[in-house]
Amino acid sequence: MMAADSNGLFTSFVPAEAQEAVTNALQESLVDLIDLSLVAKQAHWSVVGPRFRSIHLALDEVVTDARAFVDEVAERATAVGVSPDGRSATVAANSALDEVSAEFTSDDKVVLVMTEALEAAIKRLRSNIGKVGDDPVTEDLLIGISARLEQLHWMWQAQSV
Amino acid sequence: MMAADSNGLFTSFVPAEAQEAVTNALQESLVDLIDLSLVAKQAHWSVVGPRFRSIHLALDEVVTDARAFVDEVAERATAVGVSPDGRSATVAANSALDEVSAEFTSDDKVVLVMTEALEAAIKRLRSNIGKVGDDPVTEDLLIGISARLEQLHWMWQAQSV
Amino acid sequence: MMAADSNGLFTSFVPAEAQEAVTNALQESLVDLIDLSLVAKQAHWSVVGPRFRSIHLALDEVVTDARAFVDEVAERATAVGVSPDGRSATVAANSALDEVSAEFTSDDKVVLVMTEALEAAIKRLRSNIGKVGDDPVTEDLLIGISARLEQLHWMWQAQSV
Amino acid sequence: MMAADSNGLFTSFVPAEAQEAVTNALQESLVDLIDLSLVAKQAHWSVVGPRFRSIHLALDEVVTDARAFVDEVAERATAVGVSPDGRSATVAANSALDEVSAEFTSDDKVVLVMTEALEAAIKRLRSNIGKVGDDPVTEDLLIGISARLEQLHWMWQAQSV
Amino acid sequence: MMAADSNGLFTSFVPAEAQEAVTNALQESLVDLIDLSLVAKQAHWSVVGPRFRSIHLALDEVVTDARAFVDEVAERATAVGVSPDGRSATVAANSALDEVSAEFTSDDKVVLVMTEALEAAIKRLRSNIGKVGDDPVTEDLLIGISARLEQLHWMWQAQSV
Amino acid sequence: MMAADSNGLFTSFVPAEAQEAVTNALQESLVDLIDLSLVAKQAHWSVVGPRFRSIHLALDEVVTDARAFVDEVAERATAVGVSPDGRSATVAANSALDEVSAEFTSDDKVVLVMTEALEAAIKRLRSNIGKVGDDPVTEDLLIGISARLEQLHWMWQAQSV
Amino acid sequence: MMAADSNGLFTSFVPAEAQEAVTNALQESLVDLIDLSLVAKQAHWSVVGPRFRSIHLALDEVVTDARAFVDEVAERATAVGVSPDGRSATVAANSALDEVSAEFTSDDKVVLVMTEALEAAIKRLRSNIGKVGDDPVTEDLLIGISARLEQLHWMWQAQSV
Amino acid sequence: MMAADSNGLFTSFVPAEAQEAVTNALQESLVDLIDLSLVAKQAHWSVVGPRFRSIHLALDEVVTDARAFVDEVAERATAVGVSPDGRSATVAANSALDEVSAEFTSDDKVVLVMTEALEAAIKRLRSNIGKVGDDPVTEDLLIGISARLEQLHWMWQAQSV
Amino acid sequence: MMAADSNGLFTSFVPAEAQEAVTNALQESLVDLIDLSLVAKQAHWSVVGPRFRSIHLALDEVVTDARAFVDEVAERATAVGVSPDGRSATVAANSALDEVSAEFTSDDKVVLVMTEALEAAIKRLRSNIGKVGDDPVTEDLLIGISARLEQLHWMWQAQSV
Amino acid sequence: MMAADSNGLFTSFVPAEAQEAVTNALQESLVDLIDLSLVAKQAHWSVVGPRFRSIHLALDEVVTDARAFVDEVAERATAVGVSPDGRSATVAANSALDEVSAEFTSDDKVVLVMTEALEAAIKRLRSNIGKVGDDPVTEDLLIGISARLEQLHWMWQAQSV
Amino acid sequence: MMAADSNGLFTSFVPAEAQEAVTNALQESLVDLIDLSLVAKQAHWSVVGPRFRSIHLALDEVVTDARAFVDEVAERATAVGVSPDGRSATVAANSALDEVSAEFTSDDKVVLVMTEALEAAIKRLRSNIGKVGDDPVTEDLLIGISARLEQLHWMWQAQSV
Amino acid sequence: MMAADSNGLFTSFVPAEAQEAVTNALQESLVDLIDLSLVAKQAHWSVVGPRFRSIHLALDEVVTDARAFVDEVAERATAVGVSPDGRSATVAANSALDEVSAEFTSDDKVVLVMTEALEAAIKRLRSNIGKVGDDPVTEDLLIGISARLEQLHWMWQAQSV
Repeated sequence: MMAADSNGLFTSFVPAEAQEAVTNALQESLVDLIDLSLVAKQAHWSVVGPRFRSIHLALDEVVTDARAFVDEVAERATAVGVSPDGRSATVAANSALDEVSAEFTSDDKVVLVMTEALEAAIKRLRSNIGKVGDDPVTEDLLIGISARLEQLHWMWQAQSV
Repeated sequence: MMAADSNGLFTSFVPAEAQEAVTNALQESLVDLIDLSLVAKQAHWSVVGPRFRSIHLALDEVVTDARAFVDEVAERATAVGVSPDGRSATVAANSALDEVSAEFTSDDKVVLVMTEALEAAIKRLRSNIGKVGDDPVTEDLLIGISARLEQLHWMWQAQSV
Repeated sequence: MMAADSNGLFTSFVPAEAQEAVTNALQESLVDLIDLSLVAKQAHWSVVGPRFRSIHLALDEVVTDARAFVDEVAERATAVGVSPDGRSATVAANSALDEVSAEFTSDDKVVLVMTEALEAAIKRLRSNIGKVGDDPVTEDLLIGISARLEQLHWMWQAQSV
Repeated sequence: MMAADSNGLFTSFVPAEAQEAVTNALQESLVDLIDLSLVAKQAHWSVVGPRFRSIHLALDEVVTDARAFVDEVAERATAVGVSPDGRSATVAANSALDEVSAEFTSDDKVVLVMTEALEAAIKRLRSNIGKVGDDPVTEDLLIGISARLEQLHWMWQAQSV
Repeated sequence: MMAADSNGLFTSFVPAEAQEAVTNALQESLVDLIDLSLVAKQAHWSVVGPRFRSIHLALDEVVTDARAFVDEVAERATAVGVSPDGRSATVAANSALDEVSAEFTSDDKVVLVMTEALEAAIKRLRSNIGKVGDDPVTEDLLIGISARLEQLHWMWQAQSV
Repeated sequence: MMAADSNGLFTSFVPAEAQEAVTNALQESLVDLIDLSLVAKQAHWSVVGPRFRSIHLALDEVVTDARAFVDEVAERATAVGVSPDGRSATVAANSALDEVSAEFTSDDKVVLVMTEALEAAIKRLRSNIGKVGDDPVTEDLLIGISARLEQLHWMWQAQSV
Repeated sequence: MMAADSNGLFTSFVPAEAQEAVTNALQESLVDLIDLSLVAKQAHWSVVGPRFRSIHLALDEVVTDARAFVDEVAERATAVGVSPDGRSATVAANSALDEVSAEFTSDDKVVLVMTEALEAAIKRLRSNIGKVGDDPVTEDLLIGISARLEQLHWMWQAQSV
Repeated sequence: MMAADSNGLFTSFVPAEAQEAVTNALQESLVDLIDLSLVAKQAHWSVVGPRFRSIHLALDEVVTDARAFVDEVAERATAVGVSPDGRSATVAANSALDEVSAEFTSDDKVVLVMTEALEAAIKRLRSNIGKVGDDPVTEDLLIGISARLEQLHWMWQAQSV
Repeated sequence: MMAADSNGLFTSFVPAEAQEAVTNALQESLVDLIDLSLVAKQAHWSVVGPRFRSIHLALDEVVTDARAFVDEVAERATAVGVSPDGRSATVAANSALDEVSAEFTSDDKVVLVMTEALEAAIKRLRSNIGKVGDDPVTEDLLIGISARLEQLHWMWQAQSV
Repeated sequence: MMAADSNGLFTSFVPAEAQEAVTNALQESLVDLIDLSLVAKQAHWSVVGPRFRSIHLALDEVVTDARAFVDEVAERATAVGVSPDGRSATVAANSALDEVSAEFTSDDKVVLVMTEALEAAIKRLRSNIGKVGDDPVTEDLLIGISARLEQLHWMWQAQSV
Repeated sequence: MMAADSNGLFTSFVPAEAQEAVTNALQESLVDLIDLSLVAKQAHWSVVGPRFRSIHLALDEVVTDARAFVDEVAERATAVGVSPDGRSATVAANSALDEVSAEFTSDDKVVLVMTEALEAAIKRLRSNIGKVGDDPVTEDLLIGISARLEQLHWMWQAQSV
Repeated sequence: MMAADSNGLFTSFVPAEAQEAVTNALQESLVDLIDLSLVAKQAHWSVVGPRFRSIHLALDEVVTDARAFVDEVAERATAVGVSPDGRSATVAANSALDEVSAEFTSDDKVVLVMTEALEAAIKRLRSNIGKVGDDPVTEDLLIGISARLEQLHWMWQAQSV
């Protein structure tokens, strides 16, 4: 992520030994969150079935939150002196989320897809939280994102139990 | 774009002979507009230089409009009975926009990058407008998007003339 | 629709040869849209079943849009010098929509009723769009209404596929 | 109004002996209020004369209130276990309001038409208030509607005295 | 409810012979409405099943209304010179609502639980309305609450018919 | 109150035998409520003492409510065909409220003055409610005003017990 | 206006020689502005005729502004250490405005009444502005009020020329 | 309109053969719409007569819409690479609207003046719509403006029929 | 709290060894916060004395915050796979707060009661914060709640020092 | 400015000897402020260069303020009995501002143009303030406008020092 | 205040002979108003006692107004070509307000402290108003600030009389 | 910071051994944040150069955030039982920020000044975060402030790289 000629452009207040872990955690989270927003939008359009409206609306709430987190994570990267990479090819190559279908999909299936997508994002996020303890600012940001993703995971999983 | 098992799921009010052109136009526009939103967000984070703040803010206006158009275009696709494809891999593979850098980029360069990105999107859009005249609803939607993209193009180009 | 003693009261900027088609298109659209608002309200009250709340809310969105279109269409009629007729008896006699039941109705049935009501309104509207090309202002108005009705049709049909 | 196969679907908290009077009062009020909203909209479009703007705006205030009352009355009917009937044909057949003209109408005439329409609605409403005393909830709702209709009646009558 | 040493603290405008009935009605209503808000919140958290989102949202509407009514009822008690008792132990001991489960509960079951909870509250409320006719202010307040609870009852019952 | 040459100007929907009681009740309430708004404003300016700010703000809440009630009462008078009289001389001559001081007044004293002013207004209002039962619209309006005045009375009295 | 036992309660920043003129100007303005608000409300209820709605609305704009000015003037009095007198009897006795009728009044007549009321208020206000030049704060307040009253005077007079 | 040294500054997406017609249409529309805003403001100040308030307010609605259209038209010109000319001298020299009086004018006369001003603007606009069909973006913009101007024309003409 | 048949319904992202501590902490916090909201409401109604208004308002701020925290805590429980128990009987039995009086209470006493209630809630909350460090999401939530409760504690204690 | 047949239409509260100076000051200010709004809009469209966005936005703030001042000044003229003249030809002929270019203009140049335009307007305004001291209402209005124009002048001049 | 190398940077529209008095008045007012905002914030945190909440809130109103005045005064300085000095050391050295305590302070004492702080600020402000009459813009600004400070002074003093 | 006679006034929930570190951290942060708000305001007024507007606006965003943090930090001090010291002399004596110039300053220089000011504040804040781990509430507050200051630091530094 961190371009060679970017080194030294910005001051980083993160302890030197934490810089790499922080950089990796932010870049991985950025990719997963962008993909989460695209996956949720895809499902927003593809869903069919009796629960169409309810799920169509719930998906946009995921999109809204994911987009807000994307910006917070990317701007935390810049604040530690690194240019984040949120390009479509990078997202397509590095996301922790499974590829989803672009065909019309039943509401039951969409519920499972979203539950799995959130689970994949939370797992990598939780793992990264454990690695960035030396920069409490980044740690706090990722904890806050996990709090909301875990809440959303409950809301989606609750629809299929 | 149109999945095999999606055929016949939905009623389309578009004349049969216009269906393919409409489908293609919407799918191409969708991909370009998603990519435009990702490119503008990337630049929103990467830009450096004396005009940082002004361009940082202007880029978010592009993001906001591109995202709104993405939803309108995708839901027009569903309204003509086709499931749109807005996944990251599809965007990465099919966008008409040039790949951009993920490194910190000077404000002068960002202005040129955005002017070119808008130009690429407008050109394919204008071409598609010429092909969908048999479905005035889709035609009207694409004209409205082009109107705003051309206005944005002026605003970005005006910064470098 | 056009009362005898109304002739000549107002200036019309529509080409003379287009006046009759425009007048007919607006009057037919007005009647269908008023009826659509009444049918959707009726279903808003009559619906029962597990999806009650979701459909109850979705029906009011149809009502809100239909009412807004009613006003736009009627005031376009006055702008071309004709007094529109939106009285209950006229609506009851001339609507393109099928009569609906006033008894409590299952949510599954309401979804079908609304899909059919929207389809009937869109079909007559699309036919009229093809007749009013000589008055681009009226044409543009009807295209805009069809865009929204076709989107709503997808949303309702998606609940039963 | 109460469909045969609707019996017993819903619990009614109204005393059994009051049920019929309450049902009739709500159905009659519903029809009159829907018609009032359609009559006021018709006049909103048809009015001409020096006071056009003032009356055009005042008519929309009647429409707004009438529509709100329509929903309250219909949902009171469902709350007492009866499906209300607000279809255009029912309104056309059963309204207490006189039929109005669909031609352009002078502002002076519109003032009289609206005063008479409100008077007709108030009279049947007042009569029904006297019959539903055994269900204080319905009684309170109808009193509240009469309060506003009588206020509107003054405002319209004040324009012609 | 009325503490011994509270006598005479406040002026009451209620006829002396109505004071006890009014006091009892307000205290019973207060307890039921607080419990209704707690029961609805409990279900808001416990509900699972395909209709999770729709019911989760609908429950918060009950909570919002119940809480508003709680304040109105309690402040009516103070306005007639009596300190209301809204403590958890009082609610637990005196509520007319059945105890609910705190375990995860299917959406179908929650619909029945809420329908029954509303029915229990309405029945005691209707009974009290019949006893407070000598204080029209209290009577009017309780009628208004019953109007909304009966409407909510329809909305919940409609989901299971 | 009712001017000689006003007779017959407006239609009244109030039973003929209730007209006089209704007219008197509305005129007396109007005078008391205007005076209440003036008395509360006077105290808003005159109050001094440690509780200045709290009471200064509370007085404006009385003013706001009194002014709203003034308009409702006066427009109810017009709705029953009578021109209300809200002139300063009429208020000065006929108010049920005691005259207050215009000098700087301690906060303790202002609390007592406001408690007494509200008590005087409520007593005449309660008496009038008992006389207008034949016009449920007026009765309902006056009950609603008494509900709020009694609540305010508690809030003011609570400051001195 | 200034009560004997109020002397010395508050610090006044007004030059000693200006105190009396300032006090008089504020007390006279207060009385006139309260009366203006009551006169405009009276006309708001009493007006009849073809222009009813337009004038009914315009009168409430006068009321809103007059009430705001009343508060500013009275609180300027307290700020110079004097308790203003805004009681109904004081207003009735000392207003510069002519007494108005409480009967239903034609719209033409109301326009003249309001034009005269504003003229009376402006004349005394203009005279007082000339006397309070030694306290620029009070002078500035009264100039601002006159600016708006003169604008309102034009708007009312424009209706009868 | 297009300055010599402006050539080539901006990219235009309009077909070359349509550029001149588009440029002319936008410049003429700009001048007429600026003048419409100035004419309506002039009348906003000059109008006198019984309908003063109603017309005074209606004129500001014309001003608001005209100003919004002015900006859209001018920025469409820049988007096709041309600098629009909205200077007072250009407007004075090239407007299609007749010169109006700056003296106080009766409300009846103002209605006629505005009806004529709107008619003049619509006629040149309709003519230009017919010339810019090769640039659907400009065409769509001008159609939208004509829609609103024709609606306003009806509203003004309705006041004198 | 965790029902037997709820086991395994939901995925929990909390480390297995932290699950019990997290569950206990959330359930205890939920009970205390519900009780805090009920205690504050009780005092909102029962308070009397010169500081009535100020304390009456401050109590509702406690209620608002407590209710918001209740929802956050309960939904954190569901997000870790456990159904929280917020029923009145559970609250009455398990709250860490002392029982309060339901009689009218002097403002001085209410200040002490609220200070003690907040202290009791904070102490158990602080103790639980020390036990949930293995789940940073829950830890962060409880820290945020303690921050606000400690701020409120200062505000209440400041009134009696 | 003051039309012959306008004499005597309106009451003026300005001292007779100040009337001419006031009239002239208002008419000159009106012309300059309208021209300022047109000049700023022209620059809003014509500006090009690296600072395009910042200046484009700043220009609209000038337009917004100038338009608000235009209305205040013109309605002050009517309030002193004179019909202001805000027609395009009058503005073109009498403005104190230099003519500007309608061609695309560099941002550096636009800054100078706006600084000069504001300076020209302020100078004539300051001169007029010195002449209208006998009408404090007009004087106060012009001082307020100068305050804002001088602030804007600083903001524009600060960009080129 | 005016730095040597700032001379001539900006145009000043103030008469040359008034420049020094204006500069001094603005700089002194700036310092006093910044200090007033800091003193009020200090008290906002330090206050204790039964009136804590009321005074805590009232202090923030002083802060809000003082901060707004600070900006207006400083930007008036720049508008007359002078860079104001609002640094903490300058404020600490030159404020007309007495130093306050940073320890917890009883509410009674805070009332006196604020009354004195406002009095000190008003006295220097009033003195400066008398010196800047040759620049009516600055004079008008300072009069407006004094108006509000004197009103606040009354509100604080009223709490201790 | 903690006054002698303040000891024991308030309950502190912070572990005794952490009290001193927490107190110091809060007092140092308070001083730096107040100074940051004053420094940013100073630059808001002093900045000149081509980027004036952009920087002028960005500085107010720093002021807004700094002021909000000031209040949070100071009220955290009171919540741990200590009266914070935010007086101008204390700020002038103890701020970690370098003194800035009060003369007009070029935009390039202002960017450097703000970057340095933010860096100084962040460094002391980061150091204090490392010392207050025993009070997670204070720790969490300071982390949140550092997160925003580091983001602002990037935004300012990005303008000069």
